[in-house]
Amino acid sequence: MTSQFPRTDDVILGPGDDAAVVAAPDGRTVATTDLLVEGRHFKREWSSARDVGHRAVAQNYADVVAMGARPTGLLIGFAAPPELPLAWAEEFTAGVRDECALAGGAVVGGDTVGSDTLTIAITALGDLEGRSPVRRDGARTGDVVAYTGHLGLSAAGLALLERSEAAAGTPVGQSSAGRAGAAPVGEFPVGATDGLAQCLSEHRRPSPPYAAGPEAARLGATAMLDVSDGLVQDLGHVCRASGVCIDLDSNAFRPDPALLEAVRVLGAPEGKTVDAARRLMLSGGEDHALAAVFPPRVRLPEHWHVVGTVGDAPGAEAESSGTRVTVDQNVVENGGWDHFRLD
Amino acid sequence: MTSQFPRTDDVILGPGDDAAVVAAPDGRTVATTDLLVEGRHFKREWSSARDVGHRAVAQNYADVVAMGARPTGLLIGFAAPPELPLAWAEEFTAGVRDECALAGGAVVGGDTVGSDTLTIAITALGDLEGRSPVRRDGARTGDVVAYTGHLGLSAAGLALLERSEAAAGTPVGQSSAGRAGAAPVGEFPVGATDGLAQCLSEHRRPSPPYAAGPEAARLGATAMLDVSDGLVQDLGHVCRASGVCIDLDSNAFRPDPALLEAVRVLGAPEGKTVDAARRLMLSGGEDHALAAVFPPRVRLPEHWHVVGTVGDAPGAEAESSGTRVTVDQNVVENGGWDHFRLD
Repeated sequence: MTSQFPRTDDVILGPGDDAAVVAAPDGRTVATTDLLVEGRHFKREWSSARDVGHRAVAQNYADVVAMGARPTGLLIGFAAPPELPLAWAEEFTAGVRDECALAGGAVVGGDTVGSDTLTIAITALGDLEGRSPVRRDGARTGDVVAYTGHLGLSAAGLALLERSEAAAGTPVGQSSAGRAGAAPVGEFPVGATDGLAQCLSEHRRPSPPYAAGPEAARLGATAMLDVSDGLVQDLGHVCRASGVCIDLDSNAFRPDPALLEAVRVLGAPEGKTVDAARRLMLSGGEDHALAAVFPPRVRLPEHWHVVGTVGDAPGAEAESSGTRVTVDQNVVENGGWDHFRLD
Repeated sequence: MTSQFPRTDDVILGPGDDAAVVAAPDGRTVATTDLLVEGRHFKREWSSARDVGHRAVAQNYADVVAMGARPTGLLIGFAAPPELPLAWAEEFTAGVRDECALAGGAVVGGDTVGSDTLTIAITALGDLEGRSPVRRDGARTGDVVAYTGHLGLSAAGLALLERSEAAAGTPVGQSSAGRAGAAPVGEFPVGATDGLAQCLSEHRRPSPPYAAGPEAARLGATAMLDVSDGLVQDLGHVCRASGVCIDLDSNAFRPDPALLEAVRVLGAPEGKTVDAARRLMLSGGEDHALAAVFPPRVRLPEHWHVVGTVGDAPGAEAESSGTRVTVDQNVVENGGWDHFRLD
């Protein structure tokens, strides 16, 4: 499986020996690992093999760049039932290859085994290029909170798929032919629009802003993370690690037109679509946006959206009740999002 | 799962952030990954959770040292069904921790998820300490072939377990209480001996000669690999990569007394036990011994057993029929081992 991947300058020794050798010019290696299990982290009915390949790489390299590092190498463990179509494995491999090209890393090794459960294990490596890793514990009172990348689109895409399956038994944008392995993104039934397609695509193939991770490190970010569980929840990790609190300004969140369209389709009442979309931006995970904290006087490029400020750590009472991230000074539960109650 | 592991000097940033940061003082990182799937790579009936933890680490760090590198960091993906006893996960973790201590590496990150199939994904990292990686393609005519570590014991242990299960439905050395998670090694029914216990233990917890990998690199090894599929089969990789052939001298293989005892129990006839044991040494995998090729004038420490020589590459005919590794100048099939026909 690993022989067909292109090499980069970081690959000193590629697949085929006991182990690979990857450049670590900085003298340190950033490393992270994730498991993706069919039925829990992806569904073959909802995502093509190529999508799963893209996503497996994206969520790992997003963690690498969230440390301020540059992606270098990737290792893939692939456990598959014998009846898995060869075409699925080939399309998965193509997705991995293409996402690695987007992120700038290379596949350096892997292991392919049999299993009753289709399972993908990814380990991603990165190089800090001489910078300090941007951890979660460096945020200071007076810093500003910003994000870059998409927020809420993936969650909207997932909600559309769930709604569609519940209604008709066939997911939105997924023809039965698409299930065999070809990329279904863009195959929409009559009536689906570009906005919905974009939300579905972000769910199936998130597009982390890879270059923005090292950029934030160069700009002096004091803390950074990959938004995988939802912005409010993930910024809670920064607050706890840094001993601070964060207040977000809801008016600073400008929903993408695709997201507004999705929340309308999902049933947000007229006049409440912006509110509903903002709640998805606060709570929706898996877009793999980057959230970072910067000193107040840093001039940020415009793709970094400033959405909040860092304040003093709350008292013990606030700490215990988990209210370190507020929106407009108000406590929000689960980022305010409940996809069964959109109104 | 990863918070309880001790740190080493190689751990710059441990578990808990988006990614770990591991020292790579050499400017390169050695990296390898393996998946272990229950029912295919281990059985909970045959190995304790602690054994599985030991083995998962051992087989990955064996690959790292087989490049001539020093183990540094390890990442663990752990996919488990919800009904897995917590005690199993805790014992597995203890096995990982203890084997890391033996190898000299540290656990730096991980991911724990749910799955219907208990699956363990390990990625191991290492540092070359300024040496060139010892690849498979450097063997030259006139070099000598040597190994260090155990050969054949793990295969004998597996054969004993299979024989025992076929005979009685209960594996050798495994009480029913042991299956819940406690280490069963050493729990033998009346009549089992130290030799059999050692073979079972090597199957459950292989003991790779970690220090010998960097040692071989310092001694000038021209090729090296971890013996995981059997010596003859694995040396075939060296032959193909290096464009050479290897002849092994069967008389140079001195079977361990434990191995001789096991082959007697497995049915080798009187007077043929040494032959049978040697066949297991040639074909048995999973002990994770190291096999290396050295220039002829290198003085090897006595734990390196010289067992063969490197010759010129064979002609096209020999290459196509896969006979690059011979024993006493004779072609052997599957290393000469067939555990259904020991006599």
